[in-house]
Amino acid sequence: MNPTTLPAPSPDDPDGGLVPLRPEGGFPVVGIVGGGQLARMCQPPAVALSLTLSVLAESPTAAAALVVPHSPVGHHADLEALRAWARHCDVVTFDHEHVPQEVLAVLAEDGVALHPSPAALVHAQDKLAMRERLTALGLPCPRWARARTAEDVADFAAEVGWPLVVKAPRGGYDGKGVQVCAGPAEVAPWLSGVGEEGLADGLLLEEAVEFTRELSVMVARSPSGQAAAWPVVETVQEGGINTEVLAPAPGLDPDLAASLTEGALRIAGELGVTGVMAVEAFEVTDPRTGGASYLVNELAMRPHNSGHWTIDGSVTSQFEQHLRAVLDLPLGDPSARDPWTASANVLGGDYPQLYGTYKHLMARDPGLKIHLYGKGVRPGRKLGHVTVYGGDGSTESLEELRGRARHAADYLQGVVTE
Amino acid sequence: MNPTTLPAPSPDDPDGGLVPLRPEGGFPVVGIVGGGQLARMCQPPAVALSLTLSVLAESPTAAAALVVPHSPVGHHADLEALRAWARHCDVVTFDHEHVPQEVLAVLAEDGVALHPSPAALVHAQDKLAMRERLTALGLPCPRWARARTAEDVADFAAEVGWPLVVKAPRGGYDGKGVQVCAGPAEVAPWLSGVGEEGLADGLLLEEAVEFTRELSVMVARSPSGQAAAWPVVETVQEGGINTEVLAPAPGLDPDLAASLTEGALRIAGELGVTGVMAVEAFEVTDPRTGGASYLVNELAMRPHNSGHWTIDGSVTSQFEQHLRAVLDLPLGDPSARDPWTASANVLGGDYPQLYGTYKHLMARDPGLKIHLYGKGVRPGRKLGHVTVYGGDGSTESLEELRGRARHAADYLQGVVTE
Repeated sequence: MNPTTLPAPSPDDPDGGLVPLRPEGGFPVVGIVGGGQLARMCQPPAVALSLTLSVLAESPTAAAALVVPHSPVGHHADLEALRAWARHCDVVTFDHEHVPQEVLAVLAEDGVALHPSPAALVHAQDKLAMRERLTALGLPCPRWARARTAEDVADFAAEVGWPLVVKAPRGGYDGKGVQVCAGPAEVAPWLSGVGEEGLADGLLLEEAVEFTRELSVMVARSPSGQAAAWPVVETVQEGGINTEVLAPAPGLDPDLAASLTEGALRIAGELGVTGVMAVEAFEVTDPRTGGASYLVNELAMRPHNSGHWTIDGSVTSQFEQHLRAVLDLPLGDPSARDPWTASANVLGGDYPQLYGTYKHLMARDPGLKIHLYGKGVRPGRKLGHVTVYGGDGSTESLEELRGRARHAADYLQGVVTE
Repeated sequence: MNPTTLPAPSPDDPDGGLVPLRPEGGFPVVGIVGGGQLARMCQPPAVALSLTLSVLAESPTAAAALVVPHSPVGHHADLEALRAWARHCDVVTFDHEHVPQEVLAVLAEDGVALHPSPAALVHAQDKLAMRERLTALGLPCPRWARARTAEDVADFAAEVGWPLVVKAPRGGYDGKGVQVCAGPAEVAPWLSGVGEEGLADGLLLEEAVEFTRELSVMVARSPSGQAAAWPVVETVQEGGINTEVLAPAPGLDPDLAASLTEGALRIAGELGVTGVMAVEAFEVTDPRTGGASYLVNELAMRPHNSGHWTIDGSVTSQFEQHLRAVLDLPLGDPSARDPWTASANVLGGDYPQLYGTYKHLMARDPGLKIHLYGKGVRPGRKLGHVTVYGGDGSTESLEELRGRARHAADYLQGVVTE
């Protein structure tokens, strides 16, 4: 254990402050590795369900540590810190996908109930592992290859043509670790990193898919195998960062919605996912039939940005459902409550005093649901999201909601000033 | 300051652990005196709005202390504890109405921003003060009198007839401090207590109103005078304890709904209430017109049991609205989201292991919203509430929802076992 992080054991407190207070009644402790906004947003449903969270946080002022009483500080790759902490949790789940497999293996050996399991989680940690597995399962993916050499790259480019999408199999997020490369010269710096961190097993190359739009479907699965899916949503990205979510995806072909949802539930079942999972996909036009179909882009095995709309927009939020799933509690109803729900991410701009800013927004739009993560403003950082819901199912009513969400996010980040 | 409660100051920590961590961005600290379920249920909207709560709690395992990181322990009547704690809060509000006026006066003198103000709060602390003020304002009340002697009682009984409702002006709650007395013999023990705690200024006598049903309307008012009202609800009581809430009150005469709402907003304005307030009322038949009208029964100047339905059932919950109001933030939309919302209180029964019990309920009803307060089971204690919403506006659809809520509450308290 790193003595600079977790509280040191003492004769008075042999567990070093690692035992959370819990209520009477047999309610369990859910441990979450990582104190980001996803852990933070688990706290409201934990309050309602009388569940105790214990967050292994990056710092005392991490987003979740500010709102969860039991948030000892420790690093997610510090094996002894994780072992000491996990002993006092009934189940352990994750705010992010960064805990190394070798650390997870020891925790599993200790008998810690990890959700998702290391064997499932590897498919969200390693994009090559994910592509291999989904391809073996026959799920639709962009054409892809593993590359270690310039020759591997040339071979794949000969098959699918330039540009290529080059991805680091491990460690990428929010557009980092991904590059659209126009030719071999742009891939060369990547090849020189092969064997190093994130590229140990080579590069992942993918065809540059011509897609209509991006979709996401979130599903939940419990250890006993119960599963539930939220409606398929449309996600809008800018610079690799999700900026808007429209729920449900407007005008989506019902057959495509059904096949994508079935695909996601099949992935959850085949991979043994426990907790919630996001399947991000490209909507594409099938060149043979001219119909709409999908290709899987990414998997995330935790609450996900494309599911933040569910806090206000569905009967059971992704955060409540994640807690229910990892505890093997019966899952809640994932139905949407309104014809439309639109959410927009708030990214950091130049103005640090968010409190004064949101006061004005509240006056402008009494129906706006504001969610901030307790993080300081840094350019481009995800600081929060806003959600509005309602409408009559028409495109016009969605555009009105979308405009309200977009305006609020733009105003909070200083893109618009009135 | 009581050294057994608040952390003791030390050279390393001159504020004795009373300074809450707060996020960057100018967000305030809302202090709440009392760590019960009302303070606890403020935490989810505080998380969303990036507000920091500081709860002066009865114990480290108080309902709110289990979920709010900054919850120093101190007694609500310990003046020095309150002063030391309140210095670090931007505003101070209340989980209950038990802080003595003389303590509030010192805090106000210190410059603490109290919401509601002591001058407003006294009308929720002292039922005689409330009756006097509402009568002076011309608001409809049951006929009432102050009594110190048997002669006072006889005079009032001669006017309104037996039985009489006898109330302790101060300190009553959930049916305690209230008795329906059939004759002078039952009032005699009350008279012997006049001058003692709760009865310092005498007894409050009220006529026993023949009412159709009980209603409640919740309003919010901010220091700058903005006000908002939720729909009028029907409340069902058993043994003086609220057991069910139906929102909106089914079949309510729209004119009565409007006049009760106007009355509540007028009370909030005239008394200078800041934060949320519940006005509990009897629906009665006007003997002159045969039409429906109301009589004010009680006031509560804080979130209230009759508003718990708003967490799931309205755009802005009473807890979010209370935080917005005490901070003088613009108020949120109080509209109901569905045609009907039904909630039922969970009272303590014989079976202490609530976790196992709610697991079965989740399987039975995936749309049920469960809210537990982290309190141990004691017979009759309010442990939580359950809410369901939906319907098509018909009486049948309300009865279906009400049945689901009623069943869930009965099951959790062991009244039914399947």
